[in-house]
Amino acid sequence: MNVSGAYLRHYTGVPGEAKGPSVKTSIIPGPASQKLLESLNEVQQCNSVQLFADYNKSLGNYLVDVDGNILLDVYTQISSVPIGYNHPELLKSMEKLENIKVMINRPALGVFPGADWPEKLKQVLIGVAPKGLDHVTTMSCGSCSNENAYKQIFIWYRKNQRGENITFSEQEKTSCMINLPPGAPQLSMLSFKGAFHGRTLGVLSTTHSKYIHKIDIPAFDWPIANFPKYKYPLEENERENAEEDEKCLAQVEDLIVKYEKKGIPVAGIVSEPIQAEGGDNEASPYFFQKLQRIGKKYGAALLIDEVQTGGGPTGKMWCHEHFNLDSPPDVVTFSKKMFLGGFFHSKELKPDQPYRIFNTWMGDPSKLLLLETVINVIKRDNLLSLVQKSGDILLSELKKLQNEYSHLINSARGRGTFLAISCSSPQIRDKLVAKLKMEGVQAGGCGDQSIRLRPALIFAPQHAYIFLDKFRTALKETK
Amino acid sequence: MNVSGAYLRHYTGVPGEAKGPSVKTSIIPGPASQKLLESLNEVQQCNSVQLFADYNKSLGNYLVDVDGNILLDVYTQISSVPIGYNHPELLKSMEKLENIKVMINRPALGVFPGADWPEKLKQVLIGVAPKGLDHVTTMSCGSCSNENAYKQIFIWYRKNQRGENITFSEQEKTSCMINLPPGAPQLSMLSFKGAFHGRTLGVLSTTHSKYIHKIDIPAFDWPIANFPKYKYPLEENERENAEEDEKCLAQVEDLIVKYEKKGIPVAGIVSEPIQAEGGDNEASPYFFQKLQRIGKKYGAALLIDEVQTGGGPTGKMWCHEHFNLDSPPDVVTFSKKMFLGGFFHSKELKPDQPYRIFNTWMGDPSKLLLLETVINVIKRDNLLSLVQKSGDILLSELKKLQNEYSHLINSARGRGTFLAISCSSPQIRDKLVAKLKMEGVQAGGCGDQSIRLRPALIFAPQHAYIFLDKFRTALKETK
Repeated sequence: MNVSGAYLRHYTGVPGEAKGPSVKTSIIPGPASQKLLESLNEVQQCNSVQLFADYNKSLGNYLVDVDGNILLDVYTQISSVPIGYNHPELLKSMEKLENIKVMINRPALGVFPGADWPEKLKQVLIGVAPKGLDHVTTMSCGSCSNENAYKQIFIWYRKNQRGENITFSEQEKTSCMINLPPGAPQLSMLSFKGAFHGRTLGVLSTTHSKYIHKIDIPAFDWPIANFPKYKYPLEENERENAEEDEKCLAQVEDLIVKYEKKGIPVAGIVSEPIQAEGGDNEASPYFFQKLQRIGKKYGAALLIDEVQTGGGPTGKMWCHEHFNLDSPPDVVTFSKKMFLGGFFHSKELKPDQPYRIFNTWMGDPSKLLLLETVINVIKRDNLLSLVQKSGDILLSELKKLQNEYSHLINSARGRGTFLAISCSSPQIRDKLVAKLKMEGVQAGGCGDQSIRLRPALIFAPQHAYIFLDKFRTALKETK
Repeated sequence: MNVSGAYLRHYTGVPGEAKGPSVKTSIIPGPASQKLLESLNEVQQCNSVQLFADYNKSLGNYLVDVDGNILLDVYTQISSVPIGYNHPELLKSMEKLENIKVMINRPALGVFPGADWPEKLKQVLIGVAPKGLDHVTTMSCGSCSNENAYKQIFIWYRKNQRGENITFSEQEKTSCMINLPPGAPQLSMLSFKGAFHGRTLGVLSTTHSKYIHKIDIPAFDWPIANFPKYKYPLEENERENAEEDEKCLAQVEDLIVKYEKKGIPVAGIVSEPIQAEGGDNEASPYFFQKLQRIGKKYGAALLIDEVQTGGGPTGKMWCHEHFNLDSPPDVVTFSKKMFLGGFFHSKELKPDQPYRIFNTWMGDPSKLLLLETVINVIKRDNLLSLVQKSGDILLSELKKLQNEYSHLINSARGRGTFLAISCSSPQIRDKLVAKLKMEGVQAGGCGDQSIRLRPALIFAPQHAYIFLDKFRTALKETK
């Protein structure tokens, strides 16, 4: 592999970070993790736990587990660690007493915000807002962000229906209290097959990635369209993929008409810019441009769910900025790498009345404080361009590997370091992820048979080459 | 008023706390708060904001605002501050580097928990669990806690329906992906009028306290029963209130039968032990005992939502412990004073498969760390008995005041310091809350015309007497 000296000089990483992975146990989870797993199992369902980590020793791109294994982390807590473990700037930010006080005094932000809250919101969040979206509402997690964004869209849609008549009727006020129309109207969010927007009951009705997330849980009757399924490599399948775009877009329009007739009008369309949990399914900029135009035609808002894509991993702060849309999306949700949840929205979506989009905490200023440091580091260290550089190396080398191991892997894809590769079967995927782990790489799956890469923004070319080296070893050993 | 020396000696409060409230501006929000409000309004809907606080200066039971007003806080961030502002023990806990590291390394707890997570869960949360509930699942906020508790109940209910046949059918697996039965079954949670269980779409279908929370938002068709409306004083209206219990319980049973016939069986019953947001509506221990028996008769789980009542304010760690139920409730949810959300549940409710009750963060260990300190302080300072003492003073004095000012206030009620009093009209309530604020007391309303008291657990008799003194002044000046 061609290691470019220029790349290596670019970024020196987190001081003291491991030089490479190191696996000490013959299986992971090792004995110490297994013992803790038994203990945890006494108080909760924990079969999803992979290992127990030592967060005192984890540093930079390396996750250290309780058995002393040092793993190069390309999964980063389901893509939620922005600048690696124990970043010195985050540690330093906690030296200030005033910051400690933010940690221990959590306000009800909708009622008694702290003195610096407006300025912090503007500096930190509006400072990185998608172009054209100058309003922001904070929440605690991704599900709550999407749930509240849907609510804000429903409120906006009904306001548009009411037109000049902005007061609520007595019938609306009383019927909503017992869950009936017209106060609790039949409205829907259109979502896509393969989508993941969270797990609480509203957003779960728009999540369609895996049955285990949905089975036994009641859902709303809301329209679900096909999301494009592309053939790879993209450059060799342009005509077919363009047809796929048109087919899916036509179905979106059909469903909007159908649900309008059914009495459940579509108030909004929700999509991830890259379907993550569902398998890193991409759609073209053209698809999203057209999707937005269809929304506008029928009066439905466009919500881009950037909970997993947002915060830098695609090489831009927001993935939809790659799409060159006619105008900003109406709402963009975030969480994970941003430390706190929330959504950006246009002024048009701002509710006229208070207490409609509201809860006790409305986010958490202590998380905004951490995010402030993260954004300063992203800027200072030019991390978005590091993401692009490391991502370019990863993607081009993955493409070479898939030619070499075409019986095992295919369809390398993605933007920045937000990358994935499909495997020839779910079994091969699981084997490769397991082998990677024994090689000292913590990776994660997505969809039925893909491996997703979600390193931190401090993942540099030297880390990319380590990953590629280990991946090649795993491929060699896999049949 | 009889100030008992014994009470005053009992608890010395937070060192350095103000001796009493002090109001410096002619209106609240004062000029500094108003200026910040203008700034915040540029980026979000913020008409619910009452003032901007100075969390560096706020201490103990006193909230200090940016205009220098020092307010005795009997509302405590919508009842979410357990041991007051800037408690020295919380500050001290942040001196340890290992705790700082917990603040900046937020794991995906369902996949990579930290080494001490099982032990912390057991020590801190299971250590204060309601009797008989030895399992716990953590979440980030109250809404998510209830949403996931409902899901867990649906999963349990369907498991009971399947009986021995524990595998999912292909039809279930495919139908749930498009929101249709049998995979996404028609199941319901029975809730009560006046209830508040959160604002995301699932739990919002069980929230019925104020129309502004619900209007324009789609809802599930789930049964809603009347919650008892008692006449006060309770001791003079026993027969009538007992009849009210029976009427409401009969309706619960009727609704369960009706919704079973309708094809939307009731999987669970959810209730707050005291309806908080809805107006501090109490129900008797008998009501809850009988409600649990009705649930068992029809195979519906009982969820007690202790998001607002939990963590000590009723004088017990969990309000339902006042009810002497036949057996533990199936699920108890918490958040607010507990710093993190979640729910306790019986082993029977534990899902057999992972990833069904799951999300990226599954709570936040940094909040558990704060909770650990809080629980140590509650024990060390015997705060539950302080709550009972301060609460006894407040309630008995409120009863005297309501006799004196019966044209303005009535129906003083509650447990511990979790108290409320009704006003003769919504206008009188709003006037009294406003006057209290100008007297230096931050109080809050609930329901249509009640004032709720939600002081921190460090609210001592001396604070109770200050409140009562200010409340008397407000009553005197109100017509």
